[in-house]
Amino acid sequence: MPTPQQKKPRIAITMGDPAGVGPEIIVGAWPETVVHDWCRPVVVGHPAMLRRAVERWKTGVEVVEVGSITEVEAGPGVIPCLPCCSDDVLDVAPGTIDGRAGEAAYQAVVAAARLALAGEVDAITTAPLHKKALRQAGHHYPGHTELLAELCGVDRFDRFAMMLYLGPSDELLGPEGLAVVHVTLHSALEDVFGQLNEESILGRARLADDFMRRMTGRQPHIGVAALNPHGGEGGLFGDQEQRIIAPAVKRGRDEGMDLHGPLPTDTLMVRARDGEFDAVVAMYHDQGHIALKLLGMHRAVNVTLGLPIVRTSVAHGTAFDIAWQRRAETSSLLEALRVASQLSKPTSMAPG
Amino acid sequence: MPTPQQKKPRIAITMGDPAGVGPEIIVGAWPETVVHDWCRPVVVGHPAMLRRAVERWKTGVEVVEVGSITEVEAGPGVIPCLPCCSDDVLDVAPGTIDGRAGEAAYQAVVAAARLALAGEVDAITTAPLHKKALRQAGHHYPGHTELLAELCGVDRFDRFAMMLYLGPSDELLGPEGLAVVHVTLHSALEDVFGQLNEESILGRARLADDFMRRMTGRQPHIGVAALNPHGGEGGLFGDQEQRIIAPAVKRGRDEGMDLHGPLPTDTLMVRARDGEFDAVVAMYHDQGHIALKLLGMHRAVNVTLGLPIVRTSVAHGTAFDIAWQRRAETSSLLEALRVASQLSKPTSMAPG
Repeated sequence: MPTPQQKKPRIAITMGDPAGVGPEIIVGAWPETVVHDWCRPVVVGHPAMLRRAVERWKTGVEVVEVGSITEVEAGPGVIPCLPCCSDDVLDVAPGTIDGRAGEAAYQAVVAAARLALAGEVDAITTAPLHKKALRQAGHHYPGHTELLAELCGVDRFDRFAMMLYLGPSDELLGPEGLAVVHVTLHSALEDVFGQLNEESILGRARLADDFMRRMTGRQPHIGVAALNPHGGEGGLFGDQEQRIIAPAVKRGRDEGMDLHGPLPTDTLMVRARDGEFDAVVAMYHDQGHIALKLLGMHRAVNVTLGLPIVRTSVAHGTAFDIAWQRRAETSSLLEALRVASQLSKPTSMAPG
Repeated sequence: MPTPQQKKPRIAITMGDPAGVGPEIIVGAWPETVVHDWCRPVVVGHPAMLRRAVERWKTGVEVVEVGSITEVEAGPGVIPCLPCCSDDVLDVAPGTIDGRAGEAAYQAVVAAARLALAGEVDAITTAPLHKKALRQAGHHYPGHTELLAELCGVDRFDRFAMMLYLGPSDELLGPEGLAVVHVTLHSALEDVFGQLNEESILGRARLADDFMRRMTGRQPHIGVAALNPHGGEGGLFGDQEQRIIAPAVKRGRDEGMDLHGPLPTDTLMVRARDGEFDAVVAMYHDQGHIALKLLGMHRAVNVTLGLPIVRTSVAHGTAFDIAWQRRAETSSLLEALRVASQLSKPTSMAPG
């Protein structure tokens, strides 16, 4: 029979771009005992880089280079690190765009994804990489999400999505936190209209439903945002609500999801903050992000939905302007590890 | 020489639609001594309607019908009320759309605006009216703002605007509060693009600058929102930032305003909350309202800019669903009176 420790999920943490805040948030978060209550973490990166961060801030943690995931167990004082990149990253200056750092970040993601696909880890949690450094290394991806989708063989855009999740806090009154998924994301506002349709809305609602079901262990309540002010005011300010969003909500309810909407977004976000909804389906970037940032973006976790593996990430970037100064917050990484641990648990619920 | 009491601005408060929350928020806010520290208020409405609210909640305030603004001075225990409508409003049922109530609300606005235009009061503060009741009474205006603009003879759309203002609070860290003015407001999102131009943005920035200058007594810091996610990310997600908003900001700075932008709206709202900006110029309704509602809409004040008179209003509606149940918050009315009093003071600053 497995011991309680052995029942905890294994999580591979990628070091991210070593010129950014990745190494310091990992060594900063590591001694927190909650991390080791949640999971059995292992870092995929460069052991000497992590040691440099440990020495700099004297966190007293020991970095142990391991050849396999099971060789050394992690603890608040021990970081097992699977090496995945060459020594030339050690020459990269903090806070700079460097192809060698981009290559190291890339290799860590590839190695971690392989471990997850092989079932050797239950989830991966990623530290931030820098898009331009990645490109300098010859890898052309808009970000982690698309790279991971390719590594996992998921090629249809509507099958995976980035979700942002905020755990409960003083600002967020619901006991289970709030997830926000966007139907459109990195598009000009003028291009949003062409991308909204029943399928794209329904696809995102299903991903939100699945995610919050796993987080809460029950059927989640989901608010679907309107596109226009006052929800279109009965067609006076736009008809996408009646023509597209309401039919998508109806189909989702017919499938058994607890969808509500389309709801005017300004009041929807207040109701979500106050705990009435577990998730919000936003139609475009700023609709979700204005609320998320005001509610505590530094704690937000980015979750890739629709992959065959569990993947969470910090919601911030490499933050080159403050990298290696120990000013980076560890709260997003801690939340990313908590959510990855939660998602790795087998759910005991029947669907519906 | 005037006494300190005589130096306080006179403010006419309209009763609003008597089927809504107007009467109860007026009699609820009246005993607050701060009101009488700020100003010398008088109500324009139906004295018997106010007495009904007083009796219902036993606030112990005396309603005195007056024939002129100077006949009786207000105090925490005395409401002077200028009658402006017929007795048939006394038969209107609470929480219903009724042309008689619409007519009463209309007459109160007309009477208050005339007092302000004649210089008999320094400002007007309006309780909510109901658009449909107004229409049943034969008055076709989208709301207070357009009615007042007509009464004041202001007919160019770009010369007046509604601004929402939130005073400082636990949620809003700047010491002077935050004003949000919208370049477009009650339009379908698809129609926003055609309404954005340098002039419309600059016009709103000037109104925001003037308003916050009067509120703070110094040059205000103003953030101008981008339209697209990440502020367009250098043209990748739309070009309105480069083509329209940045040139408008440059022109505004050349005029001497402290404009910043275009800034990605999600981080702009966090920076504004944290006190870096006194005002935000939003491009469309939800951009401003998502933030405003999360930061405390129940306290928000609606200010009409660009009129020859000072006019503030509660930012909420008639709330028929809770009217005459004494569940309505008085905080928005209190703030509206505070802001009207502040705006009525002669400013001692030189422009620039």
